Amino acid sequence: MTTVQYVPGLENVIAAESRISAIDVEAHSIVVMGYDLSEVSLKASYEEVAHLLLFGHLPNELELRNFSRQLEDNRSLPREVYDWLRLMPSSIKPMDQLRIAIPMLAVFDPEVEDNSHEANIRKATRLIAKLPILIAHGYRIARGRELVSPDPSLPHAQNFLYMITGKKANDFEGKVFETSMNLYVEHELAASTFAARVVASTFCDIYGAAAAAVSALKGPLHGRANEKAMEMLLQIGQVDNSERWIRASLERSERIMGFGHRVYRRGLDPRADIMKGFLKDLGERIGQTKWYEMTVRIEELMRNERNLYPNVDYYVGPVYYLLGIPIELDTAVFAAARMAGWAAHAIEQHGNNRIFRPRALYTGLRGLRYTPLEQRS
Amino acid sequence: MTTVQYVPGLENVIAAESRISAIDVEAHSIVVMGYDLSEVSLKASYEEVAHLLLFGHLPNELELRNFSRQLEDNRSLPREVYDWLRLMPSSIKPMDQLRIAIPMLAVFDPEVEDNSHEANIRKATRLIAKLPILIAHGYRIARGRELVSPDPSLPHAQNFLYMITGKKANDFEGKVFETSMNLYVEHELAASTFAARVVASTFCDIYGAAAAAVSALKGPLHGRANEKAMEMLLQIGQVDNSERWIRASLERSERIMGFGHRVYRRGLDPRADIMKGFLKDLGERIGQTKWYEMTVRIEELMRNERNLYPNVDYYVGPVYYLLGIPIELDTAVFAAARMAGWAAHAIEQHGNNRIFRPRALYTGLRGLRYTPLEQRS
Repeated sequence: MTTVQYVPGLENVIAAESRISAIDVEAHSIVVMGYDLSEVSLKASYEEVAHLLLFGHLPNELELRNFSRQLEDNRSLPREVYDWLRLMPSSIKPMDQLRIAIPMLAVFDPEVEDNSHEANIRKATRLIAKLPILIAHGYRIARGRELVSPDPSLPHAQNFLYMITGKKANDFEGKVFETSMNLYVEHELAASTFAARVVASTFCDIYGAAAAAVSALKGPLHGRANEKAMEMLLQIGQVDNSERWIRASLERSERIMGFGHRVYRRGLDPRADIMKGFLKDLGERIGQTKWYEMTVRIEELMRNERNLYPNVDYYVGPVYYLLGIPIELDTAVFAAARMAGWAAHAIEQHGNNRIFRPRALYTGLRGLRYTPLEQRS
Repeated sequence: MTTVQYVPGLENVIAAESRISAIDVEAHSIVVMGYDLSEVSLKASYEEVAHLLLFGHLPNELELRNFSRQLEDNRSLPREVYDWLRLMPSSIKPMDQLRIAIPMLAVFDPEVEDNSHEANIRKATRLIAKLPILIAHGYRIARGRELVSPDPSLPHAQNFLYMITGKKANDFEGKVFETSMNLYVEHELAASTFAARVVASTFCDIYGAAAAAVSALKGPLHGRANEKAMEMLLQIGQVDNSERWIRASLERSERIMGFGHRVYRRGLDPRADIMKGFLKDLGERIGQTKWYEMTVRIEELMRNERNLYPNVDYYVGPVYYLLGIPIELDTAVFAAARMAGWAAHAIEQHGNNRIFRPRALYTGLRGLRYTPLEQRS
């Protein structure tokens, strides 16, 4: 048996070959299917970016029209899923709705067991279309609010924001939200993406891979960071309170949400910079600059005190807050955006598969003999 | 960045330290919490084995009484889960019911977000108790059959078998089924268990870890092998047909279900031997020896032709068939048995955590420049 040295969390261990994305820490760049994610996120629609991930290239006009129509045609849920959403207690959380509803959608997909590349692309397209409906309608059902029907005149991201808030955003707000979804779309082997690949590697369907990814993203060490960052800012409350609050928190050795990232270490997350700029602009337009001022103060303090830099979640939290997205939906929005990346990885895994079956280093006991119950003390 | 050589599927890569189990291929032994699984499986009840996995030691009489009572007290499902089961189309599959219902149970667990060791043990106990109810009742609801209520006079495994078949098994049959559950309970970093640990590593709750494991187990390369093995035997139909059928299948380069295992390679799976003996005894008692005769013929042929040995699923398939378990439930029964192992791993991960965040080897393009839509061909 060949073994390699054990590295907790598989840190820096290569677990897959991938043509999907690369993080180039030194160049402050995330490469997605050959393109710089920062550039593409600002210039392309979410439909274009999702197409890039599923098909490996940016769509031409005809391809984009077809892909957009497929998304539009799939912006619906089976009646039974609505019936189920209404059955659940109103305390149910968005990420719980999502991780239950995704495998439920599989029950209604006649192609669920077809893991061919073509069927996988179709299923991925359906999931990308349906997750925003699930999140927006699931939230409104739980809160007893009226559902907002999808608006076919709106692009994918803008429609999602509209279905959440019930208000038509202006062009700038729509652009900010779309860019955030683009920036969230793919990030190499994040824990959720890795979970998706492990599940897909048994030739489980793509719904199972996506559901596992949602559960992983739900964890506070992963996707919940955007919610936690905004909750922290709300607790701090005032710009002048920032330094005292953070210093006290650091003294108690608490984790400051939104700082540090295993891959970037003490380097810059290129996504954070873009969202930081949007937080400034958005705050000025809305007349609520305090969140930007707070985040900048905390960022400086963290750099000076701990040499730590913010990640994208740190700025997405307050941006979503200003866009009128309920904080409890932040992680679910992240999931809807990342769905295209998860799907690309599950499809790539199916296309060149080797089941993930590592080994454990056994540190337990050996050689114990079974004793009958009555002889045990 | 330190990287190690890339191994597809992390084959032979150590991905975790664990005190739970070790597979000693040379000694034909699976060690679980210090004990030989073969011995414990034959001598202990499922309750004792599950206790061993959750608490790290075999229970004394008082501990066993308490643990058994907790299992008994949790043999129920929320009303909403039954309402949901009745909402679903009757074509829904047992593993789909399971991977939807497990995160649904989380919604009704007030301790879901408490990842302390003690709360995790309590949640694991609830999951171990509830999975058999979900499987047996879910199956009967989908098939329009009357539900069989749990019988508090029966041990865990025997009650599960009773709720599936609706008939009281004799002592030998109950023993065979219980031993099969014990043999399925834990097997180091199988793909499903690894998926559970990856999901748990974001500090996602144990329900998310279990749901991911169920999806991974659903894949035909993993847990579905027991169903597939029995389906193959049914297709072969007659003992005299075995050799011709298998040779034709091998000539078409098809995979013979139930043979080979990454860890055992060309060695013996100690669990297979025990189930092989049970298949022989059970067949003789019932007066249906043909399945045993077929499996032995195929085993000899595969050893001679391909130097491959059967794994446990190969013998569990026909054993469950003789016990009156519908084939489509085989993988779900495996899941209910493995639940204790998955839980032990998720709890161990939470207790000494490092998020699973490996890296990918990028083999894609770089340096592409975004071109506006109208300039794309």
